[in-house]
Amino acid sequence: MELKEDTPIVILNFKTYLESTGERAVELASACQKVADETGVNIAVAPQHMDLSRVAGAVEIPVMAQHIDPIRAGGHTGSVLAECALEAGARGTLINHSERRMLLADVEAVISRVRELDMVSVVCTNNVQTTAAAAALEPDFVAVEPPELIGSGIPVSKAEPEVVTGSVDAVKKINPDVKVLCGAGISTGDDMKAARDLGAEGVLLASGIILADDPERALLDLVSKI
Amino acid sequence: MELKEDTPIVILNFKTYLESTGERAVELASACQKVADETGVNIAVAPQHMDLSRVAGAVEIPVMAQHIDPIRAGGHTGSVLAECALEAGARGTLINHSERRMLLADVEAVISRVRELDMVSVVCTNNVQTTAAAAALEPDFVAVEPPELIGSGIPVSKAEPEVVTGSVDAVKKINPDVKVLCGAGISTGDDMKAARDLGAEGVLLASGIILADDPERALLDLVSKI
Amino acid sequence: MELKEDTPIVILNFKTYLESTGERAVELASACQKVADETGVNIAVAPQHMDLSRVAGAVEIPVMAQHIDPIRAGGHTGSVLAECALEAGARGTLINHSERRMLLADVEAVISRVRELDMVSVVCTNNVQTTAAAAALEPDFVAVEPPELIGSGIPVSKAEPEVVTGSVDAVKKINPDVKVLCGAGISTGDDMKAARDLGAEGVLLASGIILADDPERALLDLVSKI
Amino acid sequence: MELKEDTPIVILNFKTYLESTGERAVELASACQKVADETGVNIAVAPQHMDLSRVAGAVEIPVMAQHIDPIRAGGHTGSVLAECALEAGARGTLINHSERRMLLADVEAVISRVRELDMVSVVCTNNVQTTAAAAALEPDFVAVEPPELIGSGIPVSKAEPEVVTGSVDAVKKINPDVKVLCGAGISTGDDMKAARDLGAEGVLLASGIILADDPERALLDLVSKI
Repeated sequence: MELKEDTPIVILNFKTYLESTGERAVELASACQKVADETGVNIAVAPQHMDLSRVAGAVEIPVMAQHIDPIRAGGHTGSVLAECALEAGARGTLINHSERRMLLADVEAVISRVRELDMVSVVCTNNVQTTAAAAALEPDFVAVEPPELIGSGIPVSKAEPEVVTGSVDAVKKINPDVKVLCGAGISTGDDMKAARDLGAEGVLLASGIILADDPERALLDLVSKI
Repeated sequence: MELKEDTPIVILNFKTYLESTGERAVELASACQKVADETGVNIAVAPQHMDLSRVAGAVEIPVMAQHIDPIRAGGHTGSVLAECALEAGARGTLINHSERRMLLADVEAVISRVRELDMVSVVCTNNVQTTAAAAALEPDFVAVEPPELIGSGIPVSKAEPEVVTGSVDAVKKINPDVKVLCGAGISTGDDMKAARDLGAEGVLLASGIILADDPERALLDLVSKI
Repeated sequence: MELKEDTPIVILNFKTYLESTGERAVELASACQKVADETGVNIAVAPQHMDLSRVAGAVEIPVMAQHIDPIRAGGHTGSVLAECALEAGARGTLINHSERRMLLADVEAVISRVRELDMVSVVCTNNVQTTAAAAALEPDFVAVEPPELIGSGIPVSKAEPEVVTGSVDAVKKINPDVKVLCGAGISTGDDMKAARDLGAEGVLLASGIILADDPERALLDLVSKI
Repeated sequence: MELKEDTPIVILNFKTYLESTGERAVELASACQKVADETGVNIAVAPQHMDLSRVAGAVEIPVMAQHIDPIRAGGHTGSVLAECALEAGARGTLINHSERRMLLADVEAVISRVRELDMVSVVCTNNVQTTAAAAALEPDFVAVEPPELIGSGIPVSKAEPEVVTGSVDAVKKINPDVKVLCGAGISTGDDMKAARDLGAEGVLLASGIILADDPERALLDLVSKI
C-alpha cells in the first residue's frame, strides 16, 4: 500500500497507552496488518517513537511517526530528527496533533522537511479555520479533530458533521490536492461510513480501537461498511 | 556495568547528529562497548529515541534515553513514556538537557517516575544554583554544563572550573548521595582528568567524540588518564 | 509596609478574572488597602500586567507582577522585562505560578534578575520536593500550592497539611532565610490561622477573595484570626 | 486614525528595549504622534504590556498590544486577557511575532477573540507559506518578516523582495480582504517606499527607529517618500 495514494485510509495512532507499548505495539500493528490484508483497506500505524523501528521491522503496512521536530541534524538532544525517523522505517508523520500542538512556523517547517525526504505529512487541526490554514501549507493530508471529542466515544461525524464538511469545503477551495481525514470519537463501521459520506477520505483514530477488548475485531468492524 | 554504581562514568549523548543516527548509532555504540570492554571504564550511550531499541539490542553497555516526558500512560501523542523507554531497553534517562529544558515541576515529576521504574536519572543543569536545586530533587546524578561551552571545544574544566567545584560543594551540602558529572567542551583525556580532579564523578559528552575522525580512538584517549 | 520584612503577609493574585480587570482591579486593590490600613496586616496585590501601573498609582500597599520573563532588555516582543515592571510600580513578582510554570533554568534566571533590581521574588511550587528545589535558588519566598486544590475551595491547610509542614521543614533545612507561604483553596480566617499554625508565614490567594460577594469583607474575615 | 482602514500604516513595535520602556515609552509614543499629526500618516505603537495604559493615556494615535493570550477570563496567572488589553487602551494586537511565536491553534483562537471585541489583529509570519496559512485565518493584517533580517539593518524589501511580493500574491488568492505588511530591517524612507512598491500596505518596525539617535527624525524620514 502507498500511504498517500490509496484512500480511504485508516491511520491508527498508538498514542502512549500501555496497551500499545512495546511488545503490545508489535501485536497491535500485526492485527492491523491482518485486517489490511484481509480487507484490502489501507491501514497505517503510528507507534511511539521508541517502538517505531521494531514495529516497522515486523509489519508491511505503512508506519508513521507520531511527531517529528522542526530541526536539522545537529545538537538537539531529545528531539526527533526526520532522517532518523525515515531510517527507522517511518514513511510519514503526524504533525501538530492536538496532544502535541506546534507553533505555526514549526508546522510549516516540518511539512517542508518531510517533503524533502519524500515522507508523507498529516497535519492535525482542531476546527475549520485551522484546517484551512493547514491546507495553505500544502501537506499531503489534514486530519481535523475537535479536541473536546478526542477519546470521548462520541464520533465527530455525528456530533459535529459541519466540522467535517466545512473542512472539506475549505481545503478544496485552498488546495484541492490536500486530502482530508477526520478523527475524534471514531470507532465503528457506522462512524467510518458517516465520515466518508461527509467527504472525508479516511479517518485518524486511537482509543476506540486500542482499548477495545478485541482490537482486530474492532478494526474489522470499522472498515466493514466502506 | 551498573549505570549508577560504577563511577567514574562516561555518558555519550548522541544528540541528533547524522553521524550518530540509525546504522551509525549502532556502530558508535559498538565502539563505546569496545572501549568499555578494553579499559573497564563505565561508558553509557544515549541514542535518539527511534534508535534506542536497536542500539540496546546491539550492545551490552548501559543505554539511556535522551529525554522522557512527565506523563503517565494514556493519550499523549508524540511524547516519550517511561514504560516504553524501559521496555525498549533504556536503563535511565537524561532529564532537562540544555537543548531540551523542562519546567521545574516536570523535572521533579520525571525523576519520580523513573525512580518508580528503577531507572537512573541524570538531571542536566546550567550553573551552580540550578545544580543545587536539582540535587534537592534527589536524582541519581546531576550533570552541570554551562550552555555557552556546549559544543565549543573549550572544556568546562578549564574555562569555568569553579562551576564544577561549586556544583560538587552545593550538591554535597544538600544531598551527598547525588553524584555530580560535568560536561560541555570535554573531549580529551586531559579534560576528563581535570574534571575528575575538580571532584566530578564522570562526564557527559557529545560532539567532541561523535564528530571526531575516529570516535573509538577519541574515546580511548578520553579515558586514558583515569 | 515592606513586602519582604513584614509577615504574616497576604498576597492576593488577581489572575485574569473579569472581576479583577481594569477599573475593578483598582477597586479591589483599594479594598485591600483599606483592610491593610484597618488591621495592620501586610497585604500585597498582583494585578494583571496591563493593570499594574494603574493599580500601583492608586494604592500604597505593595504591588507585585504576576510574572516576569527571564530576559534582558532587547528584542523580546510580548515579554515582561523586569525593569519595565519596576518602573511601572512592581516591588516584586510571582515566579513559576502553577498557571504559568517556568523552566528550571528560567526560574533561577528571574530570581537573579529581580534580586539585582532589589525586587522581591515569590516562587510558586507544587509539592514538597519542588519547594526544596526552589529554596536552593535563594528566593525571598516560596509559596507552595498543590495544583489540584487551586480554585477548589478546599484549603490546603486542611486537605494536605503535610505539604505545608513538609515544605517548611525542607526549606528550613536548605535555606532558613527563605520564607514559606502556602496557597490553594484558602479563603477564610480559619484557613489563614491553620496555615500559620502549620508554620507558613503567609498565604497566597485568589478566587476565594476575588469572586466573593464582598471581597473587602472576605479579606477582613481572612485576617481576623491572625 | 482608524487602525484598520487608514493605510499605509506604520506600526512601531516597542519590544523590550530600555530605550522604549516606561517614561521613554511615553516620549517615543509622543514623537510618533507628532509625526503622524504633521504628515497625516497612520502610525500605531505597540508598547510593553506594563506601559500600555500609560501610553494609551498619553497619545491619540492607535495603541496596540504586543501579544494577547488565547484565554478566556479566569485563572490564568501571568497571561494577557483580551478584555484587559482593551480596557487598558489597546485597539488591536500583534499576534505570533517571531519573538513570541504561537501554536497554530492559538493564533486562530486569538484572532477570533479579538474579533469578538472589535479589536484589530496583525498576525506576524516568517515566510510566504506561513503568510498564506495566516491569511486563511482571516485576520485584519498579516505582517511578513523573515526572522534572519529582524534587527539586522538589512531591509526585507531589498534582501528578499520575493518574500513580500510572494506574500501579497498568496494572501490575495486566499483572502483579498487581508492586508499585507512587511517588516525586518526597515528604517528609512527608501525602505518604506520599496515595501510599498512591492505591494505592502504598510510596515512593521522596531530597532531601526527605537535605537536611532533621534527617533522622531528617523520616523519623519521613514514616511517621507510615501
